[in-house]
Amino acid sequence: MCQRIYKFSLVLSFLFIGCRSEKVSITESRFVPVLVIHGGAGNIDRRQLNKEVEDAYRLALEHALKTGYLILEKGGTSIDAVEATIVELEDSPLFNAGKGSVTNLEGEVEMDASIMEGSERKAGAVALVSAVKNPVKAARAVMEKTRHVMLAGDDVDEFAKKQGLELMPPSYFVDLESGMNESPLSVCGTVGAVAVDKNGNLAAGTSTGGLAGKMAGRIGDSPVIGAGTYADNATCAVSCTGQGEFFIRLSVAKEISTLINYQKYSVQQACDNLVKKQLPAMGGAGGVIAVDAKGNVGISFNTTAMFRAYRNEKGSQVEIFD
Amino acid sequence: MCQRIYKFSLVLSFLFIGCRSEKVSITESRFVPVLVIHGGAGNIDRRQLNKEVEDAYRLALEHALKTGYLILEKGGTSIDAVEATIVELEDSPLFNAGKGSVTNLEGEVEMDASIMEGSERKAGAVALVSAVKNPVKAARAVMEKTRHVMLAGDDVDEFAKKQGLELMPPSYFVDLESGMNESPLSVCGTVGAVAVDKNGNLAAGTSTGGLAGKMAGRIGDSPVIGAGTYADNATCAVSCTGQGEFFIRLSVAKEISTLINYQKYSVQQACDNLVKKQLPAMGGAGGVIAVDAKGNVGISFNTTAMFRAYRNEKGSQVEIFD
Repeated sequence: MCQRIYKFSLVLSFLFIGCRSEKVSITESRFVPVLVIHGGAGNIDRRQLNKEVEDAYRLALEHALKTGYLILEKGGTSIDAVEATIVELEDSPLFNAGKGSVTNLEGEVEMDASIMEGSERKAGAVALVSAVKNPVKAARAVMEKTRHVMLAGDDVDEFAKKQGLELMPPSYFVDLESGMNESPLSVCGTVGAVAVDKNGNLAAGTSTGGLAGKMAGRIGDSPVIGAGTYADNATCAVSCTGQGEFFIRLSVAKEISTLINYQKYSVQQACDNLVKKQLPAMGGAGGVIAVDAKGNVGISFNTTAMFRAYRNEKGSQVEIFD
Repeated sequence: MCQRIYKFSLVLSFLFIGCRSEKVSITESRFVPVLVIHGGAGNIDRRQLNKEVEDAYRLALEHALKTGYLILEKGGTSIDAVEATIVELEDSPLFNAGKGSVTNLEGEVEMDASIMEGSERKAGAVALVSAVKNPVKAARAVMEKTRHVMLAGDDVDEFAKKQGLELMPPSYFVDLESGMNESPLSVCGTVGAVAVDKNGNLAAGTSTGGLAGKMAGRIGDSPVIGAGTYADNATCAVSCTGQGEFFIRLSVAKEISTLINYQKYSVQQACDNLVKKQLPAMGGAGGVIAVDAKGNVGISFNTTAMFRAYRNEKGSQVEIFD
């Protein structure tokens, strides 16, 4: 499933390597924007997904993709595109993030999110958030407005309020009577986006409503930089979904970046190495999306399905099953 | 400061590589136990540290080292040695962990800890703990008694209580009148240990009272597997201390393991690459300790001091300044 979309000349690659870890500033843009998103991976029986539900998921993915890609087309930054895309997915009741979040063993919503940009490798993350409407916005605020990378618990909601972010009551996230949310397939969990913008800057973000029935206070890989999210202009931007504990123990997102950096793997090879080899060897299931500055896309999952979509200058593609 | 303590024959190295990611079970033990510990890194003026205070720190490090090494000598596991060593350091008022924890901006204690073993790469971590006497014990309980890796917030204290772990009131950690703890140099922060046992199994652990004056809810690198702690029998065990945000953005502990795995660096070279090159390039300060299954030790820091000590069959060494 190697999806090399753009092949640049060696000269251009060399130019890019020369610019490593500096903000690329070239008058004429030399990078073609690409946006890749996911809405979770899981073992879904095709028969579970009737036409109506499948269409709803496809529409939601296309809508989020369109929102983010418009930003990139207009010359916006990858971090803006990633944030806006994830906000759309968080606002949809279909995915296990934001509005569609599942509940823990205590019946509470605890959301996690992170975001990272690849030029200076700045990052922000929030965990165990219960009131912020869009946890990815809170993660970005941690990155830009504090000297910290990771904040967790009720303090995040207070911080987010001070930053002018919207808070919502528990009833926004969950039907308080049934203890359920509206998502027909929330077991899949987690949304994410990775992007490269016209300046060759990468960004990645991930947001989740957590694992259904998890212990209260459990933090998965989504807000862990290096596990669920990573971005480095010199290698790639990565967002993961799946059984977070395994993704943490393997530092999956960082390891994909590492395989590109030290082992000269392609983006797709690096994704496959983690998802088809290292994760299964440990017993872990899930999927990853990645993109590099040249627009090479990597998508890999070891479940029967992963909600995923990508868009480049040639058009967009939305997929659910293998 | 390359401290290669044991050099094994190529044949033995080959044998070990052959055993990768399986529990090594050889009737006659072929690995010589080594324990390395740290009590934080920081920029300390030598004049700040009078003889009496320096002696107290040296004694505390020696005591912790002795406790952990006794376990290894008797054929105990590296994970038991690492836990017992860190418990000693947490119980000392001298270090910023457990009893000696500093307070956040709200005057509260929020402790983080993690532990990881290298044979199956199982891990446990706790964050924002305010009552557990020994956060490293709670981290180990998460590893062994739950299906999760990371738990945070008040739920950890409840979980720890159910596991029979000791809880303490706020006054145990901090002088409530002054808002201060008893540590004369708590700015240094964080304790950690790495060990190899007679079976060649590695383990690493880290525990911290957080950053003095941090925002409430801030999580640093100590409980982040791949950032502050990592262990893999095939590469090394690592524990970090320093400005956690940089350690998270670089996935320092995992990156040290990676450099050994893919770039064939020695343990010391890998530690130096992170601490003398990658961290300073990003503006980060701190230190790391590491050990591999052959007993090669890596110690590196870019501050003026790091409380550190190691012990092998030949004896022990305790150091503070460069």
